[in-house]
Amino acid sequence: MKIGFNFNPIGYVKNDVHDAKFRGWKKLVSRVVIDDTYVEALDGLEEFSHLFVISRLRLPGKLLLKRHPRDRKDLPVVGVFATRSQMRPNPLGLHLVQLLERKQKELLVRGLDAVDGTPVVDIKPYIPEQDAVTSARVPDWVHKLHER
Amino acid sequence: MKIGFNFNPIGYVKNDVHDAKFRGWKKLVSRVVIDDTYVEALDGLEEFSHLFVISRLRLPGKLLLKRHPRDRKDLPVVGVFATRSQMRPNPLGLHLVQLLERKQKELLVRGLDAVDGTPVVDIKPYIPEQDAVTSARVPDWVHKLHER
Repeated sequence: MKIGFNFNPIGYVKNDVHDAKFRGWKKLVSRVVIDDTYVEALDGLEEFSHLFVISRLRLPGKLLLKRHPRDRKDLPVVGVFATRSQMRPNPLGLHLVQLLERKQKELLVRGLDAVDGTPVVDIKPYIPEQDAVTSARVPDWVHKLHER
Repeated sequence: MKIGFNFNPIGYVKNDVHDAKFRGWKKLVSRVVIDDTYVEALDGLEEFSHLFVISRLRLPGKLLLKRHPRDRKDLPVVGVFATRSQMRPNPLGLHLVQLLERKQKELLVRGLDAVDGTPVVDIKPYIPEQDAVTSARVPDWVHKLHER
């Protein structure tokens, strides 16, 4: 038995990027524009330096349960839940971003890897005491992916 | 104009906790049992020590846009997006957990703060190079919350 859940956008990403293959996400500054209904739910967020943005990815493409991470044939085929690929059963994106400024219903953020118009479904503050695990172990292919 | 998205559970949390006010989450070992359809999407996950589990929180309660974090009157009233409260417009939970073992369709994890039966909508590997920001700034009330 399957029971689905409905989520509504609380806002949208605004930037100049329309191609998911863009390579400058880390430095990119985007705006997250929140629906008027939720403006006061942002109060206090400006005291955090980093946030998680949870998005509804817009370019889910074809769903394969296993694949080469970023289609790189030199990396092993792994399950989608072992990757951060956009092609996943529920196309939810998790983006850790730096908060530069809050202006009323707008958040100015750096490092949001989502194209212009991406719907946002949640925003959570980043709390290093519970979110930062520097000693976490990853497989070798992840190191290869981050080498440049 | 609002456009909703439908997400289906990919699995469920199994543990002995039925009360969201439980206090021993950090040490609690839970099972995440994945739907048969997605078993192979877990392949390779066992090489990561930590994961993000994204859940559909089951006890959303009454939605207030602003509140005292954890109802503690000694902490300031802030917007829900500045908290990790369960009472949020889209009741998505983000849980960083330690992966102890994968047995086929089951993940044995430590530190999952979700009651028995909580639906899971996504699983992502934790990658410290992109997910760990030890220097992130938080407001004083967060430190008070973590004092014990």
